[in-house]
Amino acid sequence: MWLRTSCNLTFDITVPTPFVLMLRPRSGAQQWIAMEEYKIIPSVPVFEFTDNYGNLCQRLIAPPGPFAVITSAVVQTADYVDQAPGAAFIEIQNLPDTVLSYLLPSRYCEADRFSQMATAITAGRLLGYDQVSAITEWLRTTIRFEPYRSDALVSAIEVNARGWGVCRDFSHLGIAMCRSLSIPSRMVVGYLHGLEPMDLHAWFEAYIGGRWYAFDATQEQMRGGYVAIGYGRDAADVAVYNQFGPALYPNTQHVRVELIHNEDRTDHAAL
Amino acid sequence: MWLRTSCNLTFDITVPTPFVLMLRPRSGAQQWIAMEEYKIIPSVPVFEFTDNYGNLCQRLIAPPGPFAVITSAVVQTADYVDQAPGAAFIEIQNLPDTVLSYLLPSRYCEADRFSQMATAITAGRLLGYDQVSAITEWLRTTIRFEPYRSDALVSAIEVNARGWGVCRDFSHLGIAMCRSLSIPSRMVVGYLHGLEPMDLHAWFEAYIGGRWYAFDATQEQMRGGYVAIGYGRDAADVAVYNQFGPALYPNTQHVRVELIHNEDRTDHAAL
Amino acid sequence: MWLRTSCNLTFDITVPTPFVLMLRPRSGAQQWIAMEEYKIIPSVPVFEFTDNYGNLCQRLIAPPGPFAVITSAVVQTADYVDQAPGAAFIEIQNLPDTVLSYLLPSRYCEADRFSQMATAITAGRLLGYDQVSAITEWLRTTIRFEPYRSDALVSAIEVNARGWGVCRDFSHLGIAMCRSLSIPSRMVVGYLHGLEPMDLHAWFEAYIGGRWYAFDATQEQMRGGYVAIGYGRDAADVAVYNQFGPALYPNTQHVRVELIHNEDRTDHAAL
Amino acid sequence: MWLRTSCNLTFDITVPTPFVLMLRPRSGAQQWIAMEEYKIIPSVPVFEFTDNYGNLCQRLIAPPGPFAVITSAVVQTADYVDQAPGAAFIEIQNLPDTVLSYLLPSRYCEADRFSQMATAITAGRLLGYDQVSAITEWLRTTIRFEPYRSDALVSAIEVNARGWGVCRDFSHLGIAMCRSLSIPSRMVVGYLHGLEPMDLHAWFEAYIGGRWYAFDATQEQMRGGYVAIGYGRDAADVAVYNQFGPALYPNTQHVRVELIHNEDRTDHAAL
Repeated sequence: MWLRTSCNLTFDITVPTPFVLMLRPRSGAQQWIAMEEYKIIPSVPVFEFTDNYGNLCQRLIAPPGPFAVITSAVVQTADYVDQAPGAAFIEIQNLPDTVLSYLLPSRYCEADRFSQMATAITAGRLLGYDQVSAITEWLRTTIRFEPYRSDALVSAIEVNARGWGVCRDFSHLGIAMCRSLSIPSRMVVGYLHGLEPMDLHAWFEAYIGGRWYAFDATQEQMRGGYVAIGYGRDAADVAVYNQFGPALYPNTQHVRVELIHNEDRTDHAAL
Repeated sequence: MWLRTSCNLTFDITVPTPFVLMLRPRSGAQQWIAMEEYKIIPSVPVFEFTDNYGNLCQRLIAPPGPFAVITSAVVQTADYVDQAPGAAFIEIQNLPDTVLSYLLPSRYCEADRFSQMATAITAGRLLGYDQVSAITEWLRTTIRFEPYRSDALVSAIEVNARGWGVCRDFSHLGIAMCRSLSIPSRMVVGYLHGLEPMDLHAWFEAYIGGRWYAFDATQEQMRGGYVAIGYGRDAADVAVYNQFGPALYPNTQHVRVELIHNEDRTDHAAL
Repeated sequence: MWLRTSCNLTFDITVPTPFVLMLRPRSGAQQWIAMEEYKIIPSVPVFEFTDNYGNLCQRLIAPPGPFAVITSAVVQTADYVDQAPGAAFIEIQNLPDTVLSYLLPSRYCEADRFSQMATAITAGRLLGYDQVSAITEWLRTTIRFEPYRSDALVSAIEVNARGWGVCRDFSHLGIAMCRSLSIPSRMVVGYLHGLEPMDLHAWFEAYIGGRWYAFDATQEQMRGGYVAIGYGRDAADVAVYNQFGPALYPNTQHVRVELIHNEDRTDHAAL
Repeated sequence: MWLRTSCNLTFDITVPTPFVLMLRPRSGAQQWIAMEEYKIIPSVPVFEFTDNYGNLCQRLIAPPGPFAVITSAVVQTADYVDQAPGAAFIEIQNLPDTVLSYLLPSRYCEADRFSQMATAITAGRLLGYDQVSAITEWLRTTIRFEPYRSDALVSAIEVNARGWGVCRDFSHLGIAMCRSLSIPSRMVVGYLHGLEPMDLHAWFEAYIGGRWYAFDATQEQMRGGYVAIGYGRDAADVAVYNQFGPALYPNTQHVRVELIHNEDRTDHAAL
């Protein structure tokens, strides 16, 4: 399917503030970016670099006053997310070198503390995809999804203790449990068509049967319409905006994801 | 200055043909991509990866029949290209590790054969920027620029022997001479506002005084309006389209670079 | 100074167990490896790769039975660790791209929770080196160094709460505070000549004034004789052995660091 | 088999001379370095980095006077080199991203000029391994191996024209032909047990059937005992010593490769 995504952020800046933004989705195996717009208002010098995870990051200094980041994209993404019940657990010795670091615990995913719990939740399941399905199902039925509730960044242990969370929290807890079972797992931030309420979204991927599969415990069932912006070990790696200092929240954060209908498609993406 | 660039290629494909395209300029220290469009007609799966030089490359298989690649971008680039007469030669032991490979000879830049010639051309010049200026001046006044002449890919030795060339040839010869003097040098392909005749362009950069400086021996004098698409050791690394097989030329190749005037700017780039 | 280091580990393996080892120190700006030995007993296939932080890692499957890893090296390292009181804090916008990730919180360094405490401890100090000195001094005088005490892997928050720790814990707490002040900081594991009791060691580095400086709050004062084996965000990244599964501890872990005297040096390192 | 390799170089240096050395073999899928020694006489600061191809490179400045580089290693390598007649050509669209650059022409392998010749030599062969076998066989029977003959660095075109070469030349011509058939191919420098006359050696690898296979047209038949020191596109990338300036040849270059017999093995490698 073809989607038009947009994320507009506005800030009130009091002192010159360095930002690292991560708002440029990349074309890759799962999605194709046919059009992309990225405006910074007021215009300031921006330096882009690629981080350790392959994400395109934008560095700039926001000057005092109103400051806006206006981005949009036309993206082709899959109609259905790949699912593979029965896909096999990959023994550690057979994992690609580049995947090993997704087995390690990270700031918000204390994998080293979830071994017992993850083993219990996945008892009796085939090793691999079915274990991650069991974890996802457990999250969906056990942790209360409270997308409207204001929320500081907390870790998997804290999420598990309080029993509720936003999309990011579901991912952290899912990732922590996967890694504790030696299944590499990583966080994705991006867009989801039809998300309610509409906002930036987070889900997670697990490396099974030789590739990454997406899982999203906040949704009744996986459907198509996902657009990835960034990948990382957890939320620490994939902050959409990071101003490294006292927390600075946007005044406004408008996110939209629209389906581009066939008749309109030629204008945007020339099919 | 703000530019709107576009490059449209059309091919007649007879058998399914793998392509690697390099047509997505990246935001970086020298330029900011505020809008970008990339259409493939007919639409086929495209996989993007980053090569050794940091270029974004697009892999696809072109199906038989007419095949088009339509790209455009809105880019902010410098009004004037930085120049630094007197900037110092960097001793090899002080070069960053990542720059060392740009001292080596490459397919079209046989640096190992130009030491004597480059030494003669730069005799009496300060080591560093002024040597590269002398080389550029020598190229401009010695090699005939024949942008319309059809041309197979030839190396610096061949360009020097025949005495004429297209932009790519000027770069290869300039690069070969710089490297023979232990000045790291690399090739850039991209756009140049006001280029006559308008087409994709090539120029080169030399690492002097701790950074890369651009040189372009095909122009009377360096002015602003350059937009880089790709960097590499020579033309072998920065083919805008590479179909790895019997040469396949585009039916049409339309390149445009337009200045975006102040009054229009807000629509595109929100200044 | 020239040192001979060795680390010998023995395990009792019950089922075939995948290992990732990190026991091959690399030559670099700070140290030169003139001789290195690495034995695996029994001999099994070993695959080496370089991780995200530049560390050389060895992958293998340990077969059931006694299993030993025997490593040693002859290393030239600095007689004195560089110190630079007054060295300046680098504004975030001026940090190299590759250093930015060392500002982020990580598994055992919850930098996002230490801002207030680090600000208090460094009150009145010049920004930069002197802040890290104040943190190191605070650690040395506030946290009890208990190198003999058995210890699970705990995070900076937990170390701060309990008030004592091993070398790794001192590093985690120091790193968390540095990062909370926007000073990039990373963990190092390796050897230290004269360490009491002798064992593998951990310290941390902070990026100040354009380079990394070492700090070690477990020692009365910084002296020479450090040999780095691995670098990372925290202990999760620099496990000397990682078998990804139920914790498996070595039966024996023998670490030695000997000074090579002048008269012996020619045999080893040909000075 | 277990081998002890050594390469000792001595130079007479007249002015301080920057060197980049590539003399540290790496452990990997094909070989395990159980012991390694690397002496620089006189001792000078050495900085090691990893180049684009994963090779460990040593940078230093050689002071005026006699200068020696003394290296040795104990290496476990395969008794037999893998061969795979019939292994399939990999279509370009299915090659890993990281392998694509080994299809491009390079300084000494003008792949863009060998298409016709390589097609003729491999006529009637199965695509893939058997094509490379045909090329290797053609080299062995057509190009005269003259290992003692002094020799400047020349390219595949020049080697083909003159009809004789050293090991490096055989590799360049083989690589150029493989790439012209869209088979990724790269150069390897290293040691070969039993080579006559003993010296550093060069061979090439081709990517077929999903992995790299070694080919060596200078030998009657492939046998075991290869130890790789460096990989690259051609000799420009894998110079064992590179002093970037007027050619500076070693006074002496002693290379040895000895089989370590079973009874001695325990001392070195603890089997």
